Amino acid sequence: MTASTTPLHLAGTGTALPGDPVGNAELSTAFGISEEWIDLFVGTRTRHFGWDLATGKVTHTLTDLCAESAARALAAAGLGPAELDFLVLATATPDSLLPTTANETADRLGLNHLPTYQIQAGCSGAVQALDVARALLAAGHRTGLVVAGDVTDRFLEAGRDATALATQELVNYVLFGDGAGAAVVTADPHDGAVAVRALLHRFTGQGRPPGQVVGWHGAVPPRPDRQMLHEDYRTIEEEVPALAGEIVWELLHTAGWRPQDVDHLLPPQLSGHMTERIVAGLGLPPTTREVSCVRDTGNTGNALPLLQLDRLLTRLAPGERAVSVVVESSKWIKAGLALERPGTRTEGQPNR
Amino acid sequence: MTASTTPLHLAGTGTALPGDPVGNAELSTAFGISEEWIDLFVGTRTRHFGWDLATGKVTHTLTDLCAESAARALAAAGLGPAELDFLVLATATPDSLLPTTANETADRLGLNHLPTYQIQAGCSGAVQALDVARALLAAGHRTGLVVAGDVTDRFLEAGRDATALATQELVNYVLFGDGAGAAVVTADPHDGAVAVRALLHRFTGQGRPPGQVVGWHGAVPPRPDRQMLHEDYRTIEEEVPALAGEIVWELLHTAGWRPQDVDHLLPPQLSGHMTERIVAGLGLPPTTREVSCVRDTGNTGNALPLLQLDRLLTRLAPGERAVSVVVESSKWIKAGLALERPGTRTEGQPNR
Repeated sequence: MTASTTPLHLAGTGTALPGDPVGNAELSTAFGISEEWIDLFVGTRTRHFGWDLATGKVTHTLTDLCAESAARALAAAGLGPAELDFLVLATATPDSLLPTTANETADRLGLNHLPTYQIQAGCSGAVQALDVARALLAAGHRTGLVVAGDVTDRFLEAGRDATALATQELVNYVLFGDGAGAAVVTADPHDGAVAVRALLHRFTGQGRPPGQVVGWHGAVPPRPDRQMLHEDYRTIEEEVPALAGEIVWELLHTAGWRPQDVDHLLPPQLSGHMTERIVAGLGLPPTTREVSCVRDTGNTGNALPLLQLDRLLTRLAPGERAVSVVVESSKWIKAGLALERPGTRTEGQPNR
Repeated sequence: MTASTTPLHLAGTGTALPGDPVGNAELSTAFGISEEWIDLFVGTRTRHFGWDLATGKVTHTLTDLCAESAARALAAAGLGPAELDFLVLATATPDSLLPTTANETADRLGLNHLPTYQIQAGCSGAVQALDVARALLAAGHRTGLVVAGDVTDRFLEAGRDATALATQELVNYVLFGDGAGAAVVTADPHDGAVAVRALLHRFTGQGRPPGQVVGWHGAVPPRPDRQMLHEDYRTIEEEVPALAGEIVWELLHTAGWRPQDVDHLLPPQLSGHMTERIVAGLGLPPTTREVSCVRDTGNTGNALPLLQLDRLLTRLAPGERAVSVVVESSKWIKAGLALERPGTRTEGQPNR
């Protein structure tokens, strides 16, 4: 069962992307990757990195990005840190194992005397964090902060000559980007804030091999048999479109909506080209408007659904509806949101 | 605010400790540490390791330990995997960053089609996971599984001659141990199951430097400036006793209990000697019975409060009350539980 009737409202969102966008030409120069190959294979134009491509020096930690996006979300919501009852942060790549990046972010924001939670997650982390937030609101809290982000500096090597890499490793250098997103959530409606009408978060990986492995080393010399970064892109390309279809169907069912009720679609964002293929296969009406960011930001992991949400909030008119679809392919989680801006649709709005 | 009125019951608990207990003589032989020094400084007699002290080969992964403890908790509760609505797992040391150990454990238990959450946490992870579980029950779920554990194999080096180590690093070799604990939790009372009457989980680290840092490396060569393992034992020894007192006071206040109502105390367990000092400073009546395991298990991190709970459940008679006190010293979290076995106290029971 899922607890789909608990109210959850998005009072404000914010994002943080480090430094200037890095174009394909720059990426090509830094790692010796063919620019044409990036265009053909991936379809991502720019991304941001919180580290220097030449030296590897970290310029933006995950805490930096999380605190920046959170401050923007608070400003957008018109709320101060003192009004927060909890913080939930999702990431696959925390700054350290301990202290948590959630607590470092709380400290940076001036938060204290509140519960903080850090969710270890892949692409579905933002939805999982919103799921935890919704439960905390159901338990009696009124206002919380959800943050999600990832950084690549411990998996992409500055100055690495990528021409020597196998395609499976090379693709990591062109798919990913750094970033964070945040949302202030409330139990009560907040000045026409967008409402979450359905939230899906369901593990579906029983008996299925991982589509992605991300390992880590500690203080002792690394064990040679530990898998550090592996992506099974063939399986991911096969599985994600089908799972995306199931997610849309489940969200519509829970929200009580028909396909033609969906004004905006926030599709999975592994890469620009793959997003195109997924959207084409969903069977939503052609009038459904797509809210994507992967071509500008790269795949920012945990941050990405919140980067899309931030774009959606500037576009979603009163009475309009949106569906966010997220697939976690490391051990297969179906996740997503059905969103609605309360109010009456104005004349001439498309799609009804 | 905390949502202290949501019901949470412990239907069953289970633990898993890898292999045979490792005594101080064996530890002394393996790392060249003086046995007398261990007795004097730490006061821990045995611990368990999921890796071979001579070769470093991993014999028990965190997934192994989590799945084993969870299966025991389910058996103790008389429930099967199909009756679970969710899984929450807490650890500082996941087997990999992705897939999560929560999802690997779910797969091992035969779970599917349910939400899974992995909390990145230090010593307070078990209470944080119970806090998330309580919120999920408040949101409408009925039955869930909480698991917590840690493994040391990436921070303690097999065959390392510890005589060359500074005391601050040496102490890591004698303080810690591997293990996992699990609890099946329900919204409804379950055959006289122990009830959580108050749950405290509060970040209190604003402006305070970390008492502990645990770092990690990725696929690229390690940055030399990244702190991998640092414990500020002086600060921890100063701060933890005071925080433990505050936690007891807050739990009693929320539960509406007096100090003399507490039959059993589950104190923080950094080491055997430090537990003694903390208990002595709490000011609870001398009749309060202590439930500790650190002298037998070492500090097992996230697992430890559940190892204590598992011991408590065999001792807590109907009508008896207990307080569990946990301090997270990496970035300072106050956490704890007030627990009660429903029922009527029998004649001759002490402490009232």
